[in-house]
Amino acid sequence: MDRRIREHAETLVDWSARIESGENVVVSVTEGTHELAVAVVAALGERGANVHTTYGSDELSRAYFEAHGGEFDADPAHELAVYENADTVLRLGGGRNTAELAAVDPEKQRAYGEAREGIREARTDTDWVSTVHPTRSLAQQAGMSIADYREFVYDAVLRDWQSFADEMAQMKQVLDAGTEVRVENEGTDLTMRIDGRTAVNSCASVAYDSHNLPSGEVFTAPYATEGHVTFDVPMTVRGKPIRDARFEFDDGEVTGIEAAQGEDVLREIVETDDGSRRLGELGIGMNRGIDRTTDSILFDEKMGGTVHLALGRAYDSNHPEGESGNDSAVHVDLITDMRGESRLAVDGETVQEDGQFRWE
Amino acid sequence: MDRRIREHAETLVDWSARIESGENVVVSVTEGTHELAVAVVAALGERGANVHTTYGSDELSRAYFEAHGGEFDADPAHELAVYENADTVLRLGGGRNTAELAAVDPEKQRAYGEAREGIREARTDTDWVSTVHPTRSLAQQAGMSIADYREFVYDAVLRDWQSFADEMAQMKQVLDAGTEVRVENEGTDLTMRIDGRTAVNSCASVAYDSHNLPSGEVFTAPYATEGHVTFDVPMTVRGKPIRDARFEFDDGEVTGIEAAQGEDVLREIVETDDGSRRLGELGIGMNRGIDRTTDSILFDEKMGGTVHLALGRAYDSNHPEGESGNDSAVHVDLITDMRGESRLAVDGETVQEDGQFRWE
Repeated sequence: MDRRIREHAETLVDWSARIESGENVVVSVTEGTHELAVAVVAALGERGANVHTTYGSDELSRAYFEAHGGEFDADPAHELAVYENADTVLRLGGGRNTAELAAVDPEKQRAYGEAREGIREARTDTDWVSTVHPTRSLAQQAGMSIADYREFVYDAVLRDWQSFADEMAQMKQVLDAGTEVRVENEGTDLTMRIDGRTAVNSCASVAYDSHNLPSGEVFTAPYATEGHVTFDVPMTVRGKPIRDARFEFDDGEVTGIEAAQGEDVLREIVETDDGSRRLGELGIGMNRGIDRTTDSILFDEKMGGTVHLALGRAYDSNHPEGESGNDSAVHVDLITDMRGESRLAVDGETVQEDGQFRWE
Repeated sequence: MDRRIREHAETLVDWSARIESGENVVVSVTEGTHELAVAVVAALGERGANVHTTYGSDELSRAYFEAHGGEFDADPAHELAVYENADTVLRLGGGRNTAELAAVDPEKQRAYGEAREGIREARTDTDWVSTVHPTRSLAQQAGMSIADYREFVYDAVLRDWQSFADEMAQMKQVLDAGTEVRVENEGTDLTMRIDGRTAVNSCASVAYDSHNLPSGEVFTAPYATEGHVTFDVPMTVRGKPIRDARFEFDDGEVTGIEAAQGEDVLREIVETDDGSRRLGELGIGMNRGIDRTTDSILFDEKMGGTVHLALGRAYDSNHPEGESGNDSAVHVDLITDMRGESRLAVDGETVQEDGQFRWE
């Protein structure tokens, strides 16, 4: 076995999930992630954790959706009970065909998700962590050979996370003390309020309220957004390509949308509900192990020198205990690449210029 | 997809498990059974069942066992809760290497099984069904090409189960009315009492208290066994080959063991506890779709023209409601091939001669 798979598993189990003896862990194995699963289960065995292993496959999902009538029972008890009784869920993403669900009725998928809202909540109430095993399908999606894609994934994942967390703490400190963020970039001049919010140092560990491996961003929940922003990082959203999307904001709400590609999808998203007209997240990508975009949000939004904004739902972790932020059925991230002529400032002080943080 | 995979899935879901809309089903996917899983999940979707999919792999088990210290928590709540809240568990057996656990400490495996006794009970309290997908590893174990092995499996699985069940009902009737069974074969002359016991028509459906697909045997729980028996069907038990094992019985208990190979393993099994010295099962194989032994108990014991006996634990289903039969930590089946000069008689009446039932 590639020694990097073992290191990945150990990073997931120790740094990210902080697994201790006797914990009840769900390992969610996805098609194509068997090798990582073997390493993860070995690491869990060594820590004395109790393992329940689930299987996820878009091929199974497609078969189920196509056969099912579309009226789904709410939160089936056997599935709900797993997560209600789990301490941690480790999701090993991967898969063998990112287009497997292309022809599945989106209405059915939506209804299924809605019927399982309680299961989703129970799962996200655990110390969950999502990671990705470099499968050929994901390499293809990224336009890379499997060998290069493995390098790419492990460069992002196998880091000295503690020292990276310390570096990101500087960004969190700036945001926590700040009132207004201004993002200037080609086609972008946007201001947002962030006072009263707490930034999350998302360094890929549940100990920091961070649930992705890799991570490497600091995010908060902005409001009172004004100005315009251009998202120049190519993305696929709801199966459709999005290119050079420009949004106008006034008094915190979207007032205009234009895009070279995917404008329809973006309008559909913004019109979902009240909350989808507002931003739920401002994230600052800081992971220098990620040096290119690969049309995968898990990686793209973490890339050092990018800034992303999400339409829709905000995270509770950015708000005072017991308070919730912007509420919406959607949370859709869009990214602007700051590595050209650009500036990120908090209360008028430059934090990042042309993609370089002031402490770099 | 091979149309036989779909037929297998439909037989499992409809004939075997009798799935109805709204049932909570666990599909236990084993390494190498993905294709059958797709077909099963499609059939479950069509019936409107709720699916939770688990992943089993000897490779994961080996990794876990080797890494774990060996003190296992009793019945971890997240795993237990799945089965306590499930109506049905469909186990898709398969795998990619039957020798994967060869070097794992058997003591650890035993301790693990013991710690999960409650989970095992919760699982067998559901309408569970075990079946097998023809993987290359199982073909190899059977000494067959994958193409021939597929033929073999589907010949056993894809039957007219209703008319087969009707045929087997004749055998059940004979056993239910009978007092003493006598088995005569080369190296075998054995008598057992069966009065007070109810035979199970094991026709691969939970509606008949039968939990294997394929099945095709009628079994009961014998006692007061006298005489000797030779098990001439080659088997692997606890990883060791068993060849031509001869047992002596007196007053229901084993009084002598000899074997061309595997005598040690057999002695070890018989000495497990009080119940392991006695028989827990007498089974009569009736599935004519199985025409050869393949060193797989799921198939071998169902082969038409064989008789098997199990040392150890008896099934509750052979006893009056609320009563239990022979109790033991083990249940080990051994088989004698009746297709030569032989006789199976109940209360002196011949039921089968030279491997042919009197109604055939």
